[in-house]
Amino acid sequence: MSTIMSRRDLDFLLHEWLGTDQLLARARFADHSRDTVDAVLDLAEQVATTHFAPHNRASDLNEPTYDGTRVTVIPEVGVALRAFADAGFLSAAVHAPGESPVPASVFAACMSWFQAANAGTSGYALLTMAAANLLRAHGTPEQVERYAVPMTDGRWFGTMMLSEPHAGSNLADITTRAEPQRDGTYRLFGRKMWISGGDHEITENIVHLVLARTPGAPAGTKGISLFVVPKLLVGDDGSLGERNDITLAGINHKMGFRGTVNTAPVLGDGASRPGGAAGAVGHLVGVENRGMALMFSMMNEARIGVGLCAAAIGYTGYLESLAYARERLQGRPVGADPTTPQVPLVDHPDVRRMLLAQKSYVEGALALVLLAARLFDDAETAEDAADREQAAALLGLLTPVVKSWPSQYGPAANDLAIQVLGGAGYTRDFDVEQHYRDNRLNPIHEGTHGIQALDLLGRKVMLDGGKSLGLLVGRIQATADRARATGPDGAALADRLAAACSDLVATTAQLATLGDPARMLADATAYLEATGHVVVAWIWLDQWLAAHGKEGGFYDGKRAAAWFFLTRELPKVAAMLALLRDADGLTLGLDPDVL
Amino acid sequence: MSTIMSRRDLDFLLHEWLGTDQLLARARFADHSRDTVDAVLDLAEQVATTHFAPHNRASDLNEPTYDGTRVTVIPEVGVALRAFADAGFLSAAVHAPGESPVPASVFAACMSWFQAANAGTSGYALLTMAAANLLRAHGTPEQVERYAVPMTDGRWFGTMMLSEPHAGSNLADITTRAEPQRDGTYRLFGRKMWISGGDHEITENIVHLVLARTPGAPAGTKGISLFVVPKLLVGDDGSLGERNDITLAGINHKMGFRGTVNTAPVLGDGASRPGGAAGAVGHLVGVENRGMALMFSMMNEARIGVGLCAAAIGYTGYLESLAYARERLQGRPVGADPTTPQVPLVDHPDVRRMLLAQKSYVEGALALVLLAARLFDDAETAEDAADREQAAALLGLLTPVVKSWPSQYGPAANDLAIQVLGGAGYTRDFDVEQHYRDNRLNPIHEGTHGIQALDLLGRKVMLDGGKSLGLLVGRIQATADRARATGPDGAALADRLAAACSDLVATTAQLATLGDPARMLADATAYLEATGHVVVAWIWLDQWLAAHGKEGGFYDGKRAAAWFFLTRELPKVAAMLALLRDADGLTLGLDPDVL
Repeated sequence: MSTIMSRRDLDFLLHEWLGTDQLLARARFADHSRDTVDAVLDLAEQVATTHFAPHNRASDLNEPTYDGTRVTVIPEVGVALRAFADAGFLSAAVHAPGESPVPASVFAACMSWFQAANAGTSGYALLTMAAANLLRAHGTPEQVERYAVPMTDGRWFGTMMLSEPHAGSNLADITTRAEPQRDGTYRLFGRKMWISGGDHEITENIVHLVLARTPGAPAGTKGISLFVVPKLLVGDDGSLGERNDITLAGINHKMGFRGTVNTAPVLGDGASRPGGAAGAVGHLVGVENRGMALMFSMMNEARIGVGLCAAAIGYTGYLESLAYARERLQGRPVGADPTTPQVPLVDHPDVRRMLLAQKSYVEGALALVLLAARLFDDAETAEDAADREQAAALLGLLTPVVKSWPSQYGPAANDLAIQVLGGAGYTRDFDVEQHYRDNRLNPIHEGTHGIQALDLLGRKVMLDGGKSLGLLVGRIQATADRARATGPDGAALADRLAAACSDLVATTAQLATLGDPARMLADATAYLEATGHVVVAWIWLDQWLAAHGKEGGFYDGKRAAAWFFLTRELPKVAAMLALLRDADGLTLGLDPDVL
Repeated sequence: MSTIMSRRDLDFLLHEWLGTDQLLARARFADHSRDTVDAVLDLAEQVATTHFAPHNRASDLNEPTYDGTRVTVIPEVGVALRAFADAGFLSAAVHAPGESPVPASVFAACMSWFQAANAGTSGYALLTMAAANLLRAHGTPEQVERYAVPMTDGRWFGTMMLSEPHAGSNLADITTRAEPQRDGTYRLFGRKMWISGGDHEITENIVHLVLARTPGAPAGTKGISLFVVPKLLVGDDGSLGERNDITLAGINHKMGFRGTVNTAPVLGDGASRPGGAAGAVGHLVGVENRGMALMFSMMNEARIGVGLCAAAIGYTGYLESLAYARERLQGRPVGADPTTPQVPLVDHPDVRRMLLAQKSYVEGALALVLLAARLFDDAETAEDAADREQAAALLGLLTPVVKSWPSQYGPAANDLAIQVLGGAGYTRDFDVEQHYRDNRLNPIHEGTHGIQALDLLGRKVMLDGGKSLGLLVGRIQATADRARATGPDGAALADRLAAACSDLVATTAQLATLGDPARMLADATAYLEATGHVVVAWIWLDQWLAAHGKEGGFYDGKRAAAWFFLTRELPKVAAMLALLRDADGLTLGLDPDVL
């Protein structure tokens, strides 16, 4: 049994819960069937197991180096990514003419294998797919042909260059300049920061998508444009030319996630002089000053990718600690005779608690991400326009939750995995300590936890007057109604969910009446966390329904985890919502000098 | 302003909160005054700042190595510990004839500086003090002279050898044999595991306190004896002799806390043959089969030391993230014009929340540990016998909380410290990532979180029929009454505390009626966490009272943190106690095969 991911659970979520058969019946997926879905999942497991998992620790122990000229990563990374591309995963989800994409939800299930096996190596692939998808969506046909196609082929990799040293979370303040040239290109000058995959020699070229300001652009996010800036210039025939004027100020040395090189690029300092002049040559994507919107189509994809990564790292830690707890003999039940043999760790109730908590977190998080991917599929392919719109609205609402909830509870699961192993879990002889370090990145990158909270409450819930939230509440109520119809157990769980959901709705309504946006948003993080718990409780009740009436250990496990989440986790929501309703302004009004 | 610890807070806790003046008036501390207390705290700050803090990162980057013969640690560790001994800290808290010890509560305040500055290096000192104290309490005068005195002088260090490879948390199953010899010594044979400071060349000798079984000893913990086993044998005149038969199977490579070498010792495999025969020469401490009780006098001290360590690492992370948040400019208030300058991080409400949460955790944790140390002082020196007994009972009750609550919320603070720094916090350019790794040990060693829970509920609360808990509740009610008398703000906080405390008492009573110990203890961890939160809420209300009526930013900060804890943290207790009252037996009855 693999300790990377659970194929059984993926099959359950895709087929018994999300009803992927109905999705496959749609025209877009005409070339697919349960058999092809099974085959692509088999392939993901095989490539992840063979090429990704074996060097996960090696990438941690031998992090990328930069000698002032080149970035070196261990060779296994390139080999794995070549295998990933050769197996067709870089192109599997691309919706391009002549392609027969797998659904996004099936693709996310595949990616969970790679993320769980080796998040660091997977990072290069995810960035490349996101960059290629952005160009396919918003680039000219020539940009697609010249830059997106080589990325989809795996010959070149991609990056997203947003942050700058003085502007990390706050992109409104970026200052990288893009000066228009007579030939229609731009020259870029500035410093970037926190750029994953920003340089390496895994591929012969790297396609950077860079945010910058053109002369006279408005202040703030309304004056930001998006550019394609290749590491090596590309000729009209696709041939590689001169080195572009991009170098590195250095690389960042992280606590975890070390396999993905993280860089501080410098554009236009004259280290190279393409065409005889300093300045990094870039090509505008879309029109000037609309770069943030374009980048956000990539960012939304990246945020769901972060959620999947956090869920997957949490998941593999759960499976590893479970395997350890079944094997390791230690102690005896309360009151047992000391001359009897020791029992496996899993026989201790507190160890079971730690395993069941992990199970409820990681299976809940994975289901949440797959649901988001399914909403993406529905938004693209549902037959009814209203269904497509609803799916898009729900996906928009849930994106901050999909990014942040797994990023909070995946690490919480990894923390418990260490605790199950005890001292052994704290050593580098086992992988759970690396998971704990690797997963700690996820609440930070692609928009911190606090920024997701502002996005959820300030934009997604309030800007449409609660309409998207209403859609979510409708789905939650429908699940609760179905659960009630199954009998007393289902009704007991449904009542808990419905009460928490009503509490969330009432709290939202009260926040809406506050008027003052600063006051409304002061405790947005509590709102994000409460919403996340309600959403995951809903997903657990929905999984409980998918397991209802089915016999066997797998379904008993689903029932136990659902019960655990709805009875032991969901009650935490009450305290969060109470403080939101109090709206005491404690942090808003606090004089920071007293800290 | 130091970012290691806050002297202002230590002064507040010792003098304005704990009333150390009254303690100093007792005969035992006749040589001490506020001036000497200030001087020893000054000295701790100075030695910690000069000798401990500077190599904290170096110890992490250059962890101890073992070449098959000797363990090497970086030289700064020995230099720092020499300075620690020279400054008198190894002997400062020793209650020996002719000594003039500082109170344990003052000593704990001193130790917080060292733990915060460098937990890894401090580990050697703590183990040495604990070993010396055990021998002073339970050894023969000769053992004290021969082994304890050189440790108190800092010439030799000490260890505690409890765990074995197949018996980590479960000491009942240790199998190391101690065979009596004609000369009254024993020869020990066996393997130990997780032994901190188990070998090194910082000092010329190491004094191991080893748990082992004599031939025919009863099974379980009732057949365990305690031995002094020096690394080098010691002559009657105190001179160093032959190498004892102790070697290492290897050392453990940890995620953090790397400065303290962690070893897997082997006793009696014949690597050395003292006196011509294999077997590690040991000397019985106390009588046969009573070793566990003796070791637990050391363990209780170690558990409070773990709580202090967790609080101190949490505390320094708070101060570092606060300093960063005051300096780093990023973003603007909600709705601000993007052409206005960026503001410091600390101006954002969500950053203030993360700082205030940290403050409430780390100042609460530190206060909890100092209170425990004060109870130790009172148990030893209170004039009235009933007061001494009450203090001892309360200390016994609180020890699992003092060990575990800081071990949970210190790391939670370190997690928030990383989040305040964002991407920077995830790099090794800042110390907060090391704190996060270092502090993760504390919920594991010296009794895991789950074991503390069994100790609290199964022993400390239930074995005396709730008498000790009653003492605690009495103190909590007294604080609540005093707070109510101050006016509506105090009454509001007091009502919250009193309600949570009543809820805890009612839940305890219900658990006591269950009868079945396994069922009662199934969710002991929730009981531990709920009790911890009630205790820390009490401590916060008590600090609020100590600050009441006083003006200035420091006191405003105490009021804000108390308010935060009582309104935002304490409400979490309700959900924990509800699941205890439900006693649904979920984890007890769970078939582990469904996980």
